[in-house]
Amino acid sequence: MRLGIIGGGQLARMLALAARPLGIDCVVVEPTEAPPATSVASVIRAAFDDPVALSTLASTCDVVTVELEAVPISGLDWLSERVVVRPSAAAVAVAADRLLEKQLFRSLGVTTAPFDEEVVDVPAIVKSRRGGFDGRGNRLVRTVDELAAARVALPDPIVEGLVSFVREVSIVCARSTDGALACWPVVENLHERGILRRTTALDPDALTQAAAVSIARRVAERLEYVGVLAIELFELADGSLVANEMAPRVHNSGHWTIEGAHTSQFEQHIRAVCGLPLGDPSLREPTVMLNAVGRMPAALPVLDVPGAHLHDYNKAPRPGRKVGHVSVTASTRELLDRRVTELVAHVPFET
Amino acid sequence: MRLGIIGGGQLARMLALAARPLGIDCVVVEPTEAPPATSVASVIRAAFDDPVALSTLASTCDVVTVELEAVPISGLDWLSERVVVRPSAAAVAVAADRLLEKQLFRSLGVTTAPFDEEVVDVPAIVKSRRGGFDGRGNRLVRTVDELAAARVALPDPIVEGLVSFVREVSIVCARSTDGALACWPVVENLHERGILRRTTALDPDALTQAAAVSIARRVAERLEYVGVLAIELFELADGSLVANEMAPRVHNSGHWTIEGAHTSQFEQHIRAVCGLPLGDPSLREPTVMLNAVGRMPAALPVLDVPGAHLHDYNKAPRPGRKVGHVSVTASTRELLDRRVTELVAHVPFET
Repeated sequence: MRLGIIGGGQLARMLALAARPLGIDCVVVEPTEAPPATSVASVIRAAFDDPVALSTLASTCDVVTVELEAVPISGLDWLSERVVVRPSAAAVAVAADRLLEKQLFRSLGVTTAPFDEEVVDVPAIVKSRRGGFDGRGNRLVRTVDELAAARVALPDPIVEGLVSFVREVSIVCARSTDGALACWPVVENLHERGILRRTTALDPDALTQAAAVSIARRVAERLEYVGVLAIELFELADGSLVANEMAPRVHNSGHWTIEGAHTSQFEQHIRAVCGLPLGDPSLREPTVMLNAVGRMPAALPVLDVPGAHLHDYNKAPRPGRKVGHVSVTASTRELLDRRVTELVAHVPFET
Repeated sequence: MRLGIIGGGQLARMLALAARPLGIDCVVVEPTEAPPATSVASVIRAAFDDPVALSTLASTCDVVTVELEAVPISGLDWLSERVVVRPSAAAVAVAADRLLEKQLFRSLGVTTAPFDEEVVDVPAIVKSRRGGFDGRGNRLVRTVDELAAARVALPDPIVEGLVSFVREVSIVCARSTDGALACWPVVENLHERGILRRTTALDPDALTQAAAVSIARRVAERLEYVGVLAIELFELADGSLVANEMAPRVHNSGHWTIEGAHTSQFEQHIRAVCGLPLGDPSLREPTVMLNAVGRMPAALPVLDVPGAHLHDYNKAPRPGRKVGHVSVTASTRELLDRRVTELVAHVPFET
């Protein structure tokens, strides 16, 4: 079986590594030189909507998927007429647009931050509807004048009210071709300077998990989604959840699943889009994932910590760039905290 | 970092897959066309002792290792003068020779079957000192005449007395460049028609584990071993252990560690030969590994069993050939047994 992936970054790399044991070859379309998926997948060097590249995918792949949502939807539409595309172009289109995804959440009874005309007060955040990641392009505005200026300055702006949350969490789930849904435990995400620094996966509070699964189920079913889907949420002081954004793909907050869950998000996405049964998403052990930003850590002090595993994306170092991650597991929360404390000093976060 | 591997079969494939997240590229030397390591490692198509191939390894790799012991030792010796080779050529030479390894075991006070002039009775087994795997080339002789005939028929014969064992077990361990030893739990191996069918990894009996670790430690230290080393053992009715054979490499009876241990034998071997600290070898959950022999199972019924994971080696089907394996984990022995019963019917064993 042959799987096409639009995008050849670290997500495609980890997808391709998970695909091999299942007997599945991957081919990626990626415009940049020597992307992370190089040497674990075939690489077609071309724009995401290059007609020749897409035509090659359509004629040589059994299924095509995406590792990023910032792809020209017209290309996915064109592909969909010629080969199975999972998740669907329509689902990707919604998840790639901050306005459409908020409207979808609302239509399903899922709370979101106030947006656009509902925002009557500052401070607020102005974003572009499409594009941007790691907080890039987001503008915090503190006065009505700044708000007006940002609305004009950013293309396709959306204004979001600030949400007063106690923590950021996410739910990552997978839906199969036969409609089965498998959700990993809700995890806590810690961002620094707009970039995910740490994900912590523990046995989640049952009420929080149920609420998050309910949101994931509504979204996945409405979109007739197939594959892995991530939803970022704010948890408020009263324990309720507010949907922030979704990603129609494997997600940074799911990297911990490689060591920490019975099935990794990468294997699960491959299973889902290839029409295979889903694996068990349950927690194996408390796990923390730390992003390496800017440059990779030295291997020795990291691997010296029991339960620690290194993931090098084969990317050139650059401030603000996610170049790898470190996962660490432990049998108890306390032991995990001690191991994380040891590790943090060794895992760069240079923005 | 770049690691050379002599041999490009499934062991090299799984080593290369484990090396990627550590930021290590692999290049294999393998004479056959399209070996399993293809597409996860660079492949130099050449004989194991081809001078040009070895010269390329010496000049482009930081370390060279082996995925099989049936390699010309002269080639490893030549390499050792030019690049770091782990485990050493001397260690591989001992493990590749049934007589030398028995003599080593004896010199360390490790019990073996009676061999050569110690064998005064039939039935007995006649083997060649070198080569042969999956029981190929072994000859069970039942009369003194058959014994005499086999001694003449087989090149470099060794005669072994039969051992009356209750089960076959193995200990897989890793030794690092600084002399640290990490042993996985002793596992039980079930052979059918000379080929490993099933490995079962549970929390081992403490006495058995201690006895096996003691054997592994003596062998690994005597050989100044670096890398993963496997020792096959017979367990007798009184619980004592008799050493059968050793393998200077990752081993089929360690495949369960990918899902079942905190560190897989493949990651561990990479860590060890690259001079990195060893990972935690402890059991995560009771695990069974089933070899797929002859042809791959259909993915669907296998992946439908909770806790099951598929490993396709990308080999053409052929009776008697190991083409993949299935691992399954469970939180309890009872649940594991039920899952294995479900799986066995779907995993081919065609010899």
